[in-house]
Amino acid sequence: MAALAQVLSAHGVNITSADQHADPGVGQFFQRIAFDLGSATCDRPTLESAIAHCAHRLGMRWRVGYGDAKKRVAIFVSKYEHCLYDLLLRHRAGELDCEIPLIVSNHPDLAEVAAQFKIEYRYLPIERDDKLEQERQARALLTDARIDVVVLARYMQILSDEFIGAYRDRIINIHHSFLPAFIGGRPYHQAATRGVKLIGATAHYATADLDEGPILEQDVIRASHRDTVGDLMRKGRDVERMVLGRAVRWHLEDRVLVYGNRTVVFA
Amino acid sequence: MAALAQVLSAHGVNITSADQHADPGVGQFFQRIAFDLGSATCDRPTLESAIAHCAHRLGMRWRVGYGDAKKRVAIFVSKYEHCLYDLLLRHRAGELDCEIPLIVSNHPDLAEVAAQFKIEYRYLPIERDDKLEQERQARALLTDARIDVVVLARYMQILSDEFIGAYRDRIINIHHSFLPAFIGGRPYHQAATRGVKLIGATAHYATADLDEGPILEQDVIRASHRDTVGDLMRKGRDVERMVLGRAVRWHLEDRVLVYGNRTVVFA
Amino acid sequence: MAALAQVLSAHGVNITSADQHADPGVGQFFQRIAFDLGSATCDRPTLESAIAHCAHRLGMRWRVGYGDAKKRVAIFVSKYEHCLYDLLLRHRAGELDCEIPLIVSNHPDLAEVAAQFKIEYRYLPIERDDKLEQERQARALLTDARIDVVVLARYMQILSDEFIGAYRDRIINIHHSFLPAFIGGRPYHQAATRGVKLIGATAHYATADLDEGPILEQDVIRASHRDTVGDLMRKGRDVERMVLGRAVRWHLEDRVLVYGNRTVVFA
Amino acid sequence: MAALAQVLSAHGVNITSADQHADPGVGQFFQRIAFDLGSATCDRPTLESAIAHCAHRLGMRWRVGYGDAKKRVAIFVSKYEHCLYDLLLRHRAGELDCEIPLIVSNHPDLAEVAAQFKIEYRYLPIERDDKLEQERQARALLTDARIDVVVLARYMQILSDEFIGAYRDRIINIHHSFLPAFIGGRPYHQAATRGVKLIGATAHYATADLDEGPILEQDVIRASHRDTVGDLMRKGRDVERMVLGRAVRWHLEDRVLVYGNRTVVFA
Repeated sequence: MAALAQVLSAHGVNITSADQHADPGVGQFFQRIAFDLGSATCDRPTLESAIAHCAHRLGMRWRVGYGDAKKRVAIFVSKYEHCLYDLLLRHRAGELDCEIPLIVSNHPDLAEVAAQFKIEYRYLPIERDDKLEQERQARALLTDARIDVVVLARYMQILSDEFIGAYRDRIINIHHSFLPAFIGGRPYHQAATRGVKLIGATAHYATADLDEGPILEQDVIRASHRDTVGDLMRKGRDVERMVLGRAVRWHLEDRVLVYGNRTVVFA
Repeated sequence: MAALAQVLSAHGVNITSADQHADPGVGQFFQRIAFDLGSATCDRPTLESAIAHCAHRLGMRWRVGYGDAKKRVAIFVSKYEHCLYDLLLRHRAGELDCEIPLIVSNHPDLAEVAAQFKIEYRYLPIERDDKLEQERQARALLTDARIDVVVLARYMQILSDEFIGAYRDRIINIHHSFLPAFIGGRPYHQAATRGVKLIGATAHYATADLDEGPILEQDVIRASHRDTVGDLMRKGRDVERMVLGRAVRWHLEDRVLVYGNRTVVFA
Repeated sequence: MAALAQVLSAHGVNITSADQHADPGVGQFFQRIAFDLGSATCDRPTLESAIAHCAHRLGMRWRVGYGDAKKRVAIFVSKYEHCLYDLLLRHRAGELDCEIPLIVSNHPDLAEVAAQFKIEYRYLPIERDDKLEQERQARALLTDARIDVVVLARYMQILSDEFIGAYRDRIINIHHSFLPAFIGGRPYHQAATRGVKLIGATAHYATADLDEGPILEQDVIRASHRDTVGDLMRKGRDVERMVLGRAVRWHLEDRVLVYGNRTVVFA
Repeated sequence: MAALAQVLSAHGVNITSADQHADPGVGQFFQRIAFDLGSATCDRPTLESAIAHCAHRLGMRWRVGYGDAKKRVAIFVSKYEHCLYDLLLRHRAGELDCEIPLIVSNHPDLAEVAAQFKIEYRYLPIERDDKLEQERQARALLTDARIDVVVLARYMQILSDEFIGAYRDRIINIHHSFLPAFIGGRPYHQAATRGVKLIGATAHYATADLDEGPILEQDVIRASHRDTVGDLMRKGRDVERMVLGRAVRWHLEDRVLVYGNRTVVFA
């Protein structure tokens, strides 16, 4: 911490906020520093070079993101619109600091939503034998659009390990339960059958093991015996979009560090 | 509902509150009626007989509890004191409408707490070969003290199926996780490893399948990467006692109806 | 309760759910009964006549609503879109059982949103001297569209007492604070200055005393010293739309009874 | 940040965690650094001198606390026991890193609780004409016991400005409402009358303006029309002790910085 702070200070860089976390169990130290380059006495390559030198000396992994280089986000959807709308409205309200040039779907249903927000909508249907072909098309779109982050906004398809590996810790999924409870399909039906008193949602990075990736955020809403499966779904929609909205915002602001199967979220 | 309301009305009984719930999925109707006998024009046996007649005619199961016949509660503990204290303080504050004549433990540690509240504390140690013998002793104490309800306030022992069967839907357990997540032992360690963002607790009726009984109440507290296992345990203590306190209160006030593996809680 | 249940039963009406509440302090009893007319042995006027007779005999006020007669809602907005979108999306998802034929605004900004959902948008600007004239026009629109309920979805104008009186307990407002804290203008700035640790929102029926009407629903989101006024506004948008969504749903389902300056919400 | 980190690093001090916050509105920067002296290459006075020199150069106010110098806490109570028990149980569970040598009360009722935890209980009755005399006695006790922090655990007396001034930002009060709503007396009655849907509690530093001091923590519990004033009081007890417990813990761990009428809480 001292070394990095000194490097920044020596180059006229003003630290506006910083967060640190140490996990003694795994012997790792994490740090996020936000700084203002307005008073910097050098250019970006020089600064990065100084950081790299310091990091190398102390065995640190590092990454710099610039506020004027917005991340480019693709949203994958199927037929549910609530998470898609929520992200697009948050984006328009200035909550999500990114560009959203692309929406990909295996169904045509939400094309009109994309049109309302003037975003390209690519309908890539999946037929029985061409799931990998569809994924290949999707990945080509991501490459063409220089996408940094993929948000699975209730995209009801499992991605291949290869796809996930190519966007490691950059694919955010929303799972409609409080993981690790109700892993797998139809969690609201599972919840109703089990008679739980809370309905949850979990935003996590997608990994090869479905529903097992590092958790970004979770929340719950109270439920009761009065709730039908339909009521649980309604409550679920609310908690899903809240949780996904926060997770995406934190990711975009580089507030999330992944280690092992866990996250540090400097929220 | 009409029939029962009419029976009560016809006997001068004033309904002070009522709750109904229908579960079309299983084709069952549930009702809880609280009434004031002050203006009743008959004695209790006559009223019960009229209710029984009405219930029989309509195929209803029923039960009447009288406010002047307080339930008798035994609390089972091991070494953790937070849930025990919480229940005893709530009782003294008038939140729990019951008598607590007995505390049973497999450890001597909490005898002093019982003494402070002037409650009999029976230390029944478990030795390697006498687990069932210890349980037999415990059950004899319950019988002698005419116990209606057993609260497992972090009692770290599994009860036999026979014990549970004898107090079906009358043994309340607090499980230190958001069931069905983290079933089994050391849930806070499991939670830390999984990197969850919420810590939960679940109060449920004990059944032969451990951690699978009908859920009375659940709640959560936010957690983060900053929380050590010790922090999670601290948060867990808070949510455990809140959840257990509510569950016990609702049970004592006859607000809980069990069907299948679920509960209706007229809270 | 007995009398009404008997009336319904005698006409072949099947009660599907019911809720009761007694407030001994004011000596009032409240009841909401949902019933299914499928097995009724009479027509609606006959049933209503029987209810009226029973109610008159026992001094009860009553009201019947039919599921096939959807309430007609007008939404009033200014420039903020988050509450408007939220209501329209909930409506489309089937959460709000009503028709929304009309959106009224003192600004043109949100016309496009209305167009996306194919709802008439009437822009009624307020000029310095014609506030009452604008209101007169708005009320004419409400009358023409046979509006039952007005939702002020961050409509930044105070309505006249006359308007409010004409739609007593039928105008739902969302106030962007936890009332009665931060009554008045710019509550997020007030909250930041006071250094509160929670940000709230309140849905209430509009009354002549601004911010003093019967409360339908309230909720909060945690805040901290890290939150700028902008962050509080962001959190506020989330809690506002959650609270308003619930309040409107409960009102539409006739779950809210007003007495004095308070509500009974049979949620 | 860089300068201080360098000072610590230069003296062999290992930073275990750090938090920073900048408030551009008032032009202030706040920092909390936790460090481990195990590898320090100097003694404490030398380290403090180096910190003082650095701080003076950069115009910073600073304070160092050592983990082996536990703060000494006095708890003031009247007749309510729930907050007192809660603090004492948290202390015994190791949640509160302090010594609690003294409990002061204007009533004799809770002497037995103090005895159970083997803490001195001083009963200082207030008679009509000797309020200041009683306060003088209390302050003498605080001085004798070398008290650092005073916790008003539902102490139903107003302290003099002089008392408060002597323990500025070191007297923690729990107010039984969500301030600034329901300032003043009987907030649960006020809440019931207003028909609010949430019950809150606020922990704040005591200031001359009652209920106006810097807020440490707040929380709420849901309420409904079903809650009597007694129910609200019960819910209030739960939220009060949760909020007070967190506030006291944060204060004891030097996580709270006061500026203006606000706090930075590095929780």
